[in-house]
Formats: sequence, structure tokens, C-alpha cells
Amino acid sequence: MSMLITNIVRACSTKRLLDEVKLANQTVKKIKPPIHKDKPLKMEDLTKVYLSPLPDSPYVRPFRFNYVQGGKDKNWDMLAVHDSVAIIVFNTTKNVLIFVKQFRPAVYFNCIPPAEREAGEIDTNKYPASLGITLEMCAGIVDKNKSLQEIAKEEVLEECGYDVPLRELHQIASYRAGVGVQGSLQTLFYCEVTDDMKVGKGGGVEDEIIEVVEKSIADVEKWISGPGPLNTPPSCLFALMWFLRHKADKYRKSFERYCGECKVVQDDGFFATSSD
Amino acid sequence: MSMLITNIVRACSTKRLLDEVKLANQTVKKIKPPIHKDKPLKMEDLTKVYLSPLPDSPYVRPFRFNYVQGGKDKNWDMLAVHDSVAIIVFNTTKNVLIFVKQFRPAVYFNCIPPAEREAGEIDTNKYPASLGITLEMCAGIVDKNKSLQEIAKEEVLEECGYDVPLRELHQIASYRAGVGVQGSLQTLFYCEVTDDMKVGKGGGVEDEIIEVVEKSIADVEKWISGPGPLNTPPSCLFALMWFLRHKADKYRKSFERYCGECKVVQDDGFFATSSD
Repeated sequence: MSMLITNIVRACSTKRLLDEVKLANQTVKKIKPPIHKDKPLKMEDLTKVYLSPLPDSPYVRPFRFNYVQGGKDKNWDMLAVHDSVAIIVFNTTKNVLIFVKQFRPAVYFNCIPPAEREAGEIDTNKYPASLGITLEMCAGIVDKNKSLQEIAKEEVLEECGYDVPLRELHQIASYRAGVGVQGSLQTLFYCEVTDDMKVGKGGGVEDEIIEVVEKSIADVEKWISGPGPLNTPPSCLFALMWFLRHKADKYRKSFERYCGECKVVQDDGFFATSSD
Repeated sequence: MSMLITNIVRACSTKRLLDEVKLANQTVKKIKPPIHKDKPLKMEDLTKVYLSPLPDSPYVRPFRFNYVQGGKDKNWDMLAVHDSVAIIVFNTTKNVLIFVKQFRPAVYFNCIPPAEREAGEIDTNKYPASLGITLEMCAGIVDKNKSLQEIAKEEVLEECGYDVPLRELHQIASYRAGVGVQGSLQTLFYCEVTDDMKVGKGGGVEDEIIEVVEKSIADVEKWISGPGPLNTPPSCLFALMWFLRHKADKYRKSFERYCGECKVVQDDGFFATSSD
């Protein structure tokens, strides 16, 4: 029985394991200045997709968590991942929310029926890359010896191209991402930026293909009220709901109104002028 | 180069892999009628915690996703997991939101400093189980040939003890959980229940130790405005924000008001009567 393993053996194997899992994260990045890509790579240009067994991977390092609860032996299989930050970025010059759009292999994979995944190479004409393209808040992992605010500032620069002062990054909430197998802490920030702070194109570093997307408040309200499924994580939906609850009224254009009933964005004067 | 593996080899290894990953999920459950536990197991009673390398696991099955994007060879390591449902349950007899409270090993693990995790058995006096106890919406995985609504109905019964008619389960949104390594689809439902629909204690099935928690609307507003970190997933925070935006006004007690500025729940007449 696993409980009978001695503490020494446990300590050795655990140490080795944890030395390895220090490397573990799906999106390890090195800090580099933003690269201005003259010829942006297209995230929609997807071919030669197939699955293979996992070799020894520096990114996904699963392990088993053993415990006794209520007097009963139990265990739980999980992954070690880094904590992360996410940032709500609102551009007050244009009155738009800033999103990042990217291809997420794990989302794409889940859009392919299991039978089709088993047939070797996946038919990318039948299943285009757009299935796996998500809209998210700017975000990044905590894998450096810097404050959460400093890491948030770097991500806003790298992914969105804005150089935002540290004091403008306000901590909103932190919560547990992936309570099932990951359980890492994500901390959400809010910042307001202006066009003057835009110093680069954004788009990520190294191999990242990230597109910066701007959406008006009315467009966001319409988008999250649609039938879905929304190719976005719940943390982004929480961030948007937080923004709508706490900030939107200040910035909503006075002539824009979204109808929750019919899902239409209308001018304030719509009904008065519709019979003209 | 991995791209040179023939399609036949790919198909074989992929099929074997996917036969295995069909089993893959952290929380596989069999459907059984709710068990009324006379002596509830205590989730706080935690001992003998240690990590070990992952043996061949039926729960966590990682694999590698290979592709060519923008003309460049890439790969991404991920897990296959089931889609899921989550349900906002509001009891209109008591005007309370229904939560489930449970111990999440992955959350607990992330609360232990890495150096302490490496020291063999984790000191549960220093790191009590409460670190890993989360507050979440009722939820469950989609691992049976039933509609999402039927699965949602079963989860509300098993976890919360309410027998809710199918027609009362309203689909709110669906989104992508764990875009990094999982990418599975979670569908959120809303249902209103009454005390009359309570037919059991809830608490989950088999080994599950789940506690049903009721919170008033004002308590929820206070809780999510606190400094955190909140031991809850972002999907729960989105669900609560959705409820506050779309449903709360109808059910908020007329005398309860929450002050976003000072974080205090006040009676409507508070200021008028405070000098009495």
C-alpha cells in the first residue's frame, strides 16, 4: 500500500518530482522586449494536426497527491502549474476594452468529435483553426521574481502594446483557476490606458501569435448575452461582468443603449427617430 | 522528426491513447441515488499528505497535440477531460443562493510553499485542510448519454438535495474551462428551487464529502467584494455576477442594501435610525 512507503523514499521521489515540475507550465515565456512583427503569422493558417502520446514533457508534469481524509485513504491526480495574472485593459481614448485573440490547441481539440480525433491527422478543412481561437483578457504566468503588478505591467506591454504605469494597475480579485486538476491562483487587475501609452503593436513574444482586439462596451454586452458557446474562459466573463458592474456606467457613450430583451444596441433617440 | 511518422502509426497510437483517455477525468462518478449520510465525514479531518510520482492513472491522461501553424511546426501538451455543467441554484423560499463546499487537493497543494512540499509528508497542523476548501456552484461532468439538462438535474439532486423539474433548468451560457491545458466546455444553468423540492441532504455520492452552504444575496455581495484571495473558481464568480445582474433585484430583501464603498450590509433605514 502506498501509505507504507517510508518518509525517506517519499522525500527523495518528491524532491526529484518537484525539481522537474518547477519547469512545468504550458506557456513558459522568456521576458524579451516586444517584437514588432512586420509580417504577422496567421493564426488561422493551421495544417498537419495530429495527437501523439506524451513524451517526457517540460510543460505538463502530472503527479499524485496522497492523503487521508475522514480516516479514509484517498488520492488525487493533478498538475503543477504556475500562478497567473489577468488584466482588464480599458482604453479611455477610444472607450474600448482590449482583448487578446489567440489559437488555443486545448479548445480546438475539444471541438473535434472523438471519432474524428482517432482517425489520424485531423481534417483542417472540415475543422478550421477558428474553432480554437479564443477571446481573452490579457494574461500571463507568474514565473519570475517580480511583483504581481510588475508582471501584469509586462504582459500589458508584450501582448497589447501599452506601457502602463505600475500605479495604474489596480488589484481586483484573486481566485482559484482549474480547481479540479490545477488549483493555481489567478489575480485580476484593472487598468485604464490611453492612446498615448501605446508604444508597440503587442502580439506577444517569440512564437506567440496574438491579435489585439478592441470592443466597445455595447459590443461586449451584446457578445456575452449571445447564445454561445463563447470561446472564452470563465475568468474573462467574470472580468467583463466586473467591468460592467463597476466601471461601465462612467464610460458608456450616452447615446448607446443595449436592450437585454431583444439584444439590439440602440441609440437613445432610436424610438423617437425610427418613424422619420 | 515527429512529422515523419506515418499516418498508420499515428492512427494506431492515437487510437490506443484515446481509448485510454476516454476514462480520463479527475472526478469520475457513477450515478447512484443520493446517500443520506448519518455520520457525515469531516472534510477538515486531513492527515498523511504527501506527493508521489504519477503511476498509470485512469484520471489524468496527458498527451501531445502536434500541428503546423503559419508554416511552423508546433506542439502543445494537454489533458483530455470531460465537458461539464454548473448550476446556479436559488432557493426562493429562503431567498438564498446554494453553494457546495468541498476539499480540493489541487487548491490545497498550491497553498503550500514549494520548499515545504518537498519535505516529504506535509504538516497538516501548519497547513490545515481549510486552505483547500472551496465554495463553488453545484457542478458535474458530462460522462453519460443524457442531455445537459438531465445531468444538471442529477447534480442538483446529488449535491444539493433538491429535486428540480427539468423545465426549471434554464441554460445561461457556455464557455471554455481551462483554455491552457483542458479547453473543455462548461455549460451554466440557472434554476430556482423551493423548500418543498428538498428531498435529501445532498452532499454528493460515494466518497464525496460535500457540504451544502446557503448565502443571502447581501452576503454574496459582501463576500465577492472582500480582499480575497477567494477560494473559488472564476466560473463561480461569473455565475454570481450573472445572478446579481439579472436576478438579484427581484429577490433582494427590500430592507437590505450593500454599500460598495464601505462594504457594509445596511438596512434601508440605517441612516435614518442610526442616531436613535
